[in-house]
Amino acid sequence: MRHITLVADWMDPDLKEKIDLRAGELGFETAWFCSDGEAVRDAEKAEILFGMAPGALKAGRGIRWLCLPFAGIDRFTAPGVVPEGVAVTNSAGAYGTAISEHVVMVLLMLLRREHLTYGKMASGEWCREEKLESLWGKRVCVCGTGDLGRNCALRIRAFSPASLLGVSRSGRPLPGFFDAVFPSSEADKALAEADVVILALPGTDGTEDFLSRERMALLPGGAYIVNVGRGRCLDEKALVEGLRSGRIAGAALDVMRHEPLEKDDPLWRAPNLILTPHCAGNMTVRATRENCAAMFLEDLENYASGRELKHRVSLRDGY
Amino acid sequence: MRHITLVADWMDPDLKEKIDLRAGELGFETAWFCSDGEAVRDAEKAEILFGMAPGALKAGRGIRWLCLPFAGIDRFTAPGVVPEGVAVTNSAGAYGTAISEHVVMVLLMLLRREHLTYGKMASGEWCREEKLESLWGKRVCVCGTGDLGRNCALRIRAFSPASLLGVSRSGRPLPGFFDAVFPSSEADKALAEADVVILALPGTDGTEDFLSRERMALLPGGAYIVNVGRGRCLDEKALVEGLRSGRIAGAALDVMRHEPLEKDDPLWRAPNLILTPHCAGNMTVRATRENCAAMFLEDLENYASGRELKHRVSLRDGY
Repeated sequence: MRHITLVADWMDPDLKEKIDLRAGELGFETAWFCSDGEAVRDAEKAEILFGMAPGALKAGRGIRWLCLPFAGIDRFTAPGVVPEGVAVTNSAGAYGTAISEHVVMVLLMLLRREHLTYGKMASGEWCREEKLESLWGKRVCVCGTGDLGRNCALRIRAFSPASLLGVSRSGRPLPGFFDAVFPSSEADKALAEADVVILALPGTDGTEDFLSRERMALLPGGAYIVNVGRGRCLDEKALVEGLRSGRIAGAALDVMRHEPLEKDDPLWRAPNLILTPHCAGNMTVRATRENCAAMFLEDLENYASGRELKHRVSLRDGY
Repeated sequence: MRHITLVADWMDPDLKEKIDLRAGELGFETAWFCSDGEAVRDAEKAEILFGMAPGALKAGRGIRWLCLPFAGIDRFTAPGVVPEGVAVTNSAGAYGTAISEHVVMVLLMLLRREHLTYGKMASGEWCREEKLESLWGKRVCVCGTGDLGRNCALRIRAFSPASLLGVSRSGRPLPGFFDAVFPSSEADKALAEADVVILALPGTDGTEDFLSRERMALLPGGAYIVNVGRGRCLDEKALVEGLRSGRIAGAALDVMRHEPLEKDDPLWRAPNLILTPHCAGNMTVRATRENCAAMFLEDLENYASGRELKHRVSLRDGY
């Protein structure tokens, strides 16, 4: 029987059962593992590998399809990591729900100074009211208009921002989501009018240092920055300086160049900066796991019928 | 000239100017004060009083209209506080923008365990990921379907909850906002299916202890509670017990029975409880000040033309 090795200690029993059932109907047997190490022997007979499991990938010489249950594939793009002839899919699209909730949360925390209020109230001190701001009337620019950016846009729209712009490689209009989309070659124009910048970019050569020191200087004074893409898309040193001077009113980073942060990283002590431990797309959100399972099943149907894999990625482009 | 006394140290210069200009066109002169004490002498000649100013109200025997720049009028309903024959308007409707942002923020913080993560990251500890939840798939019940409740509904809708129910005195349907509205006599039914309860009720005799111990017991296990109405609408002792036992997964109170909280109040130490210092409708949000000014001007037009005041409240009903 054709074999699938799945490495996912986080998958819910009911979702495993659903996958097993449909796989069986399509002529596949499945074996689930909690870690890469445990899966290595099993992968020798696998045609499909699901999960973050470099050891199993190496051992599984018969693997024809690798399904990665996350969006950022930057660790798999170097030559030789994925053998020739293996199709790779990712799960971009599974994380929009969770990550956009994170974005709205940290953005409102920054605008409403909850990062200051919370600390005081949590230590038993009745807080004097801070000077609060609102998303209402703010001009928002979302850099990256894929699943993450679009889900952010849908939610932010309900808060009536003054404008909601997108920046993407092509600049292709997305009328249901953004008032306008600028091609990345014209990102400067969009940033110059952004009270709020949301970075939802993949980590590729093209997005390296996207929000550079120069571009940060284009932002209106008192702007807010949220990064949920990749740490390397933003100049962290310039950000710390902007926060210290007050030119940047606040920022929230879920991703950094070095994770976990070193003990002496200046980011720890930057004012008005909310740090989170790369948890925006946390797999403990049930919706995310459901999405991952559904996307795998969708492409399992395609694979079994010899059709194109819908969620296939280009290792060369990095997404 | 007919005279208006305005007590509002928080009003923006441009909004003051706008009010002065239109008032002049309508045949009124205006005088602005930063405190009740300063306004007392001026109020002696006033026909209209704008602001929270009990001293000026008492001194101003010629006052015919009192405009309160906030929503909760419970401190003005006792007999004798407002003299006979004075029309009272409030500014319910000015706060929906700010307060609904607060509600979404604390709700996402609770679901995503940011109240735990933030404390660790802020003290320099790279946090292990907590078990996060999502608004997606949650059943939400908003108690109070006025300006606050509706603004909450509009924003929460964008996060795709499984259902969005309202509870109001009349139970009148509000299709653009809620999937269904239950009359308060049937609140128990709505609460029994609520993963999230939002209290946006005015403080009246009818809403006293609305979320009582008995009703809290009807909620599904693991529910979340947010209160932005009045502290007296909720049984605080039952809430603390529910949070301690874990039956209530989390709560956020912006209003309490005693504000500021006493040093030894058990709420300070209840787990998974986000406390804020009655700042949800904070007047430092520009949108709120704009709304307050616009509502006053709207009724100044009505007053000058002898029409009914649109934002008039009933001191007997309390809203």
